[in-house]
Amino acid sequence: MTPTLKLACELIAARSVTPDDAGCQDIMMQRLGAVGFNNERLRFDDVENFWSRRGDQKPVVCFAGHTDVVPTGPEAKWEFPPFEPQIVDGMLRGRGAADMKGSLAAMVIAVENFVAKHPNHKGSIAFLITSDEEGPAHNGTVKVVETLEARNEKIDMCIVGEPSSTNQVGDVIKNGRRGSLGGILRVKGIQGHVAYPHLAKNPIHLAAPALATLANEVWDNGNEFFPATSFQISNIKGGTGATNVIPGELEVVFNFRFSTELTADILKTRTQAILDRYELDYDIEWALNGQPFLTDRGSLVNACVDSIRAVAGIETELSTSGGTSDGRFIAPTGAQVVELGPCNATIHKVDEQISAADLDTLAALYENILERLLA
Amino acid sequence: MTPTLKLACELIAARSVTPDDAGCQDIMMQRLGAVGFNNERLRFDDVENFWSRRGDQKPVVCFAGHTDVVPTGPEAKWEFPPFEPQIVDGMLRGRGAADMKGSLAAMVIAVENFVAKHPNHKGSIAFLITSDEEGPAHNGTVKVVETLEARNEKIDMCIVGEPSSTNQVGDVIKNGRRGSLGGILRVKGIQGHVAYPHLAKNPIHLAAPALATLANEVWDNGNEFFPATSFQISNIKGGTGATNVIPGELEVVFNFRFSTELTADILKTRTQAILDRYELDYDIEWALNGQPFLTDRGSLVNACVDSIRAVAGIETELSTSGGTSDGRFIAPTGAQVVELGPCNATIHKVDEQISAADLDTLAALYENILERLLA
Repeated sequence: MTPTLKLACELIAARSVTPDDAGCQDIMMQRLGAVGFNNERLRFDDVENFWSRRGDQKPVVCFAGHTDVVPTGPEAKWEFPPFEPQIVDGMLRGRGAADMKGSLAAMVIAVENFVAKHPNHKGSIAFLITSDEEGPAHNGTVKVVETLEARNEKIDMCIVGEPSSTNQVGDVIKNGRRGSLGGILRVKGIQGHVAYPHLAKNPIHLAAPALATLANEVWDNGNEFFPATSFQISNIKGGTGATNVIPGELEVVFNFRFSTELTADILKTRTQAILDRYELDYDIEWALNGQPFLTDRGSLVNACVDSIRAVAGIETELSTSGGTSDGRFIAPTGAQVVELGPCNATIHKVDEQISAADLDTLAALYENILERLLA
Repeated sequence: MTPTLKLACELIAARSVTPDDAGCQDIMMQRLGAVGFNNERLRFDDVENFWSRRGDQKPVVCFAGHTDVVPTGPEAKWEFPPFEPQIVDGMLRGRGAADMKGSLAAMVIAVENFVAKHPNHKGSIAFLITSDEEGPAHNGTVKVVETLEARNEKIDMCIVGEPSSTNQVGDVIKNGRRGSLGGILRVKGIQGHVAYPHLAKNPIHLAAPALATLANEVWDNGNEFFPATSFQISNIKGGTGATNVIPGELEVVFNFRFSTELTADILKTRTQAILDRYELDYDIEWALNGQPFLTDRGSLVNACVDSIRAVAGIETELSTSGGTSDGRFIAPTGAQVVELGPCNATIHKVDEQISAADLDTLAALYENILERLLA
């Protein structure tokens, strides 16, 4: 077994379901401390985090990631026990293999190798690791970033180890993410008997054409880096349960994933304008889950693209699709942020697995990127 | 407090949400038994019913009604607790005041007074009372009527105490009822992540324009006896609870109240045609709750009209509007059926209430009708 696979197995064997770290961060800090990193534990409530840095110069190139994993689901459905990592037919199997203990192992090995070759590298190398990325994420990366900002310690470039790839490691990197804006719409009517509709106001009837319009609205056409902004209703609920009562209220939970062509405020204004056009009596509880961010072509993106071409022999695709990641907390500080990790086909599923060879390639990629930025 | 109001309060204080009777029928049977009625409990599954009769001659004039009430909705929204009846500013307040414990009290008092004056009245007086009129109504009046039919015991004239009036007690009586056709529509989509809408099909988005069309459709224009057919959605439900998941199915519960201009089959066909126009993948579970029925002018309608003129000093309007009532089960036996009760403005709502004076008028009306038919 290669050093990367060995370390990945060691991490996967720890049952670190969010927010438990289960000792993973100790393993990482021990390895990093041994090659000259200064480790700083940053626990917030029940969430273990650490910040670790080697060097005091700029630029600061940071590896970011999480030691927590999502629950296994029914363990009986796994072909192999989720916390007993093994390599079968060239695949590393176990919960977190792809998301993202494999990446964490590759980062540590890459840094060990790079530091051995360049003990006096330029700039600084850092690690920002949390144990709550998959959960509420209130006491994880966001708090570490606040701590760094408060002392004016800046990350210049950040590689998040999220599984960005589709078919082969490096075929896709994420250089941004859409924003996420949630809303709970409550449309008010007047409750009454279905037999006396003139004495009631049915909020489902009143809202239906407005919901149809919201669902059909073209919010933007996206841009070079972002797909078009999308609106989706995730939950709808109205009615007392009785079949003869017109309900007094309808609740609609919706979510925007939005591009940099729009802002959350524009989406709020346009949503309200549509609802007002139908003269609805309503309120909306908004929740901005994440601003969109974008890291345009520049030193970090170029280093990634060039390393992938050199090490993996493929042209990478820049993408901003997919769910939120902790990059949303780091990008607003002004850092360049890219997500580069293994294939994501099995993340959050039973029988999570990745190609063992891809993981060694990933370690080589991370090391090659450091070569380009800090050698 | 008058005897009618006192008895109404006693009944309202019992928390008899469908199918619970909560002791109301015992109170009524005790009063009726004391004035020579023969009570017969007819429990079917979890539904309490009773049939009570005084006399063995024809014609049988029956008072019909229900002791159950609809749920209160959020009790905190009530100005006064729903099961603590009180008279405030001349209004009797509480769940069931209008629908229809007030009527039950008026019936009992009317009969007590009538029997005191005419202990050897003509024909028979009967009560047919259920505790499941507001619910599925499978084990209520329909089963009592089956029992009577099986032994060839016929109701000739039936006064249902449903709140038929609009502004003043007696201003409207119902001499027929619309049909009621229920449906549960399930629209199928494909579940997925809100961040990847192209991999999912959102059934809420797909259904919204079809629901808007159904809500705006003119089904017919009614006729001399019936208002236009109406469509109402009573319940809608879709979503996993998670805010980032597009649901795989939407469930919509709806109800038609229809005139004699249409049939249930025509409504089914037209509903499906609208859904098909939007190319929805769906199924519908239909439930025909009642065919429309009509009692034309005759001895019962005339007695009601004349009593209302004599006691309340107003001309009544014959109407077939409003909800289904248990009259739909009694009318097919050949009985004349009329609904006469208090004002219905607040039924099924929070702060249900009726004029206290109206309730005493109602008792006088019921007694006067008995005078005309059985004295």
